[in-house]
Amino acid sequence: MPVGTLASVKSLTTNQLLHLSPQSSVLSPQIILVNTYHLMLRPGVDVIEKLGGVHKFMSWDRAVLSDSGGFQVFSLAAIRKLSEDGVEFRSHIDGSAHFLSPERSIDIQQRLGVDIAMAFDECPPHGISREEAEKSMELTHRWARRSLAARNGAAASPASLPAKAAAPALFGIVQGGVFHDLRKRSVEEICAMDFDGFAIGGVAVGESKAEMLDIMNFTTPLLPREKPRYLMGVGTPEDLLNGVAAGIDMFDCVMPTRNARNGSLFTSMGKIAIKNARFAGDPRPLDANCSCITCTTVSRAYLRHLYVNDEIAALVYNTIHNVAFYLDLMRGIRQAIASNSFGSFRDFFLSRISSGDADAQQDHGAANNREQ
Amino acid sequence: MPVGTLASVKSLTTNQLLHLSPQSSVLSPQIILVNTYHLMLRPGVDVIEKLGGVHKFMSWDRAVLSDSGGFQVFSLAAIRKLSEDGVEFRSHIDGSAHFLSPERSIDIQQRLGVDIAMAFDECPPHGISREEAEKSMELTHRWARRSLAARNGAAASPASLPAKAAAPALFGIVQGGVFHDLRKRSVEEICAMDFDGFAIGGVAVGESKAEMLDIMNFTTPLLPREKPRYLMGVGTPEDLLNGVAAGIDMFDCVMPTRNARNGSLFTSMGKIAIKNARFAGDPRPLDANCSCITCTTVSRAYLRHLYVNDEIAALVYNTIHNVAFYLDLMRGIRQAIASNSFGSFRDFFLSRISSGDADAQQDHGAANNREQ
Repeated sequence: MPVGTLASVKSLTTNQLLHLSPQSSVLSPQIILVNTYHLMLRPGVDVIEKLGGVHKFMSWDRAVLSDSGGFQVFSLAAIRKLSEDGVEFRSHIDGSAHFLSPERSIDIQQRLGVDIAMAFDECPPHGISREEAEKSMELTHRWARRSLAARNGAAASPASLPAKAAAPALFGIVQGGVFHDLRKRSVEEICAMDFDGFAIGGVAVGESKAEMLDIMNFTTPLLPREKPRYLMGVGTPEDLLNGVAAGIDMFDCVMPTRNARNGSLFTSMGKIAIKNARFAGDPRPLDANCSCITCTTVSRAYLRHLYVNDEIAALVYNTIHNVAFYLDLMRGIRQAIASNSFGSFRDFFLSRISSGDADAQQDHGAANNREQ
Repeated sequence: MPVGTLASVKSLTTNQLLHLSPQSSVLSPQIILVNTYHLMLRPGVDVIEKLGGVHKFMSWDRAVLSDSGGFQVFSLAAIRKLSEDGVEFRSHIDGSAHFLSPERSIDIQQRLGVDIAMAFDECPPHGISREEAEKSMELTHRWARRSLAARNGAAASPASLPAKAAAPALFGIVQGGVFHDLRKRSVEEICAMDFDGFAIGGVAVGESKAEMLDIMNFTTPLLPREKPRYLMGVGTPEDLLNGVAAGIDMFDCVMPTRNARNGSLFTSMGKIAIKNARFAGDPRPLDANCSCITCTTVSRAYLRHLYVNDEIAALVYNTIHNVAFYLDLMRGIRQAIASNSFGSFRDFFLSRISSGDADAQQDHGAANNREQ
């Protein structure tokens, strides 16, 4: 899922997002993510609701998933006060006072008109003790129950009330930090509730790549196979392949759009830094294996020229490609699964990435890849 | 002509520029302007020539006009030394030493592969004495002769030389400051040479709007009607209407793209500042009379939301609209001329602009509207 924090996938118009390739039927995302925390602060849920919901607001008629605000309120808000009821916090933008609880988060997500809402969870930072992780997890479980009740209550609103957007699907979030026994308990409790899908939260919050993979590989197989399994805030192309291998169905990550703005571009031969002087006269497309507008219309030399000269269009071209690259990877994965050849697809993809002419760039941490 | 200083119309991909409207056949520019001064410094003419010329570089197969570098070298370069031969100057970017002369400018423009090149002129600032203006104008005339000879020599290159891009059409530039007699002399001398079109230079350089209009109204009727007449670096929608009334055929101006980046948007009801709080909940399209992607997909509320939150997509949406607005104005002008109703078209356009709900914003000066 491309990340559209403020109801905009950064650097792209909605029309561009729908047409990343000249062949508009390919490389076109079916779902995006928006952020409850950000939208409740800017422009505010009242504004979006009055304008007909987030789909109409951004002119997007495909699916939208919203996160619950839990992650951002714990990572961004300057001052916060946690209680059983919810979180009082001050906006990181203007210091204004706000409150989020399971009921409030679900209400906002429903008023945004999203298709899939997330349960409101506490998302503690990496590095806390087992005891703190357990306490936080138990709060998340109680909040999950309240989130579900709030959604179900909304779904069951008497018809005499003013017409509202249909109640969204709701996903539960498994927490438990890096502790296997807590993760197992969290899966048992969360999956006992009637959510429409399940997410692994509390990853991409500062732990090492190895820890992220360990949590993912341990937790995913415990989740019900018959409902969507979503790994939040992950990750690199390699992470996506490993995630799918473990059983993950859905991902979101700011990496394609944020890296694009930093000139770090994904290609089938590995990542490249487009500002590198060796691209100054390079007539080749960014990625010969990509059918996006960037790769089918301009050269690496042109992309470097725009980027080093701070042209806004550089960010647009780069974002088109990086988002298309991720979508194409997921499309390839789906096709490989359908033809029962996921293993060889993964091997091929990984060997090509590491053998290519691209810059040697490694991602050592899983941290900071989730939209804040 | 949309301005594409660095072979990129700021904030837009080439694909976007070709498809400003969902109906791609309308609001699609047929010609853009690029800047010799900027491209010779970044990425350098060698790079662009090796990559097959500016059209291929930016994936643009329609017409390109380049200015000669004269205006920028006199307005941007930090240190310059003017002689009969040309101008030695230092780059405003890195202080590197460069030289431009009529021959060098024409050579660069030809190697860029543009369709229309401009003669190399001296473009003095506003406020100089009549004596200085006359001296400068006479140098421009001598340089015009050399520019034409350089282009004709290039066109006549022996076939035994390596294949080069076809020699471009070449426009001469009339100077003479704010002095009618000098403008008249300049027209006589420049138009006696076999240029393919004629431009009025030395406007939009700091003079008042009244002075610009006076120069334009005095000079344009003196230019031959059978060749294109081009007013350089102008202007507002009103300026374009007044220019056409005087006989001008071509304009270039950074105003649509630069204003877009500043959130200043042109509409059929006048200019608006999109950051204005009164647009926060406004569900209407930016301009109900516009068929661009911005106006047909999103609301003023959404545009304001993106702009006040520093989303890059705001600049993209705004630029799409402002460029489309200018193209639509020129399209309307052409249609009105064809149906012999230009006068009433102009009256209608101007009365609607001033009666609208848009912000009261006036343009008092003609200065700084030319791409530097």
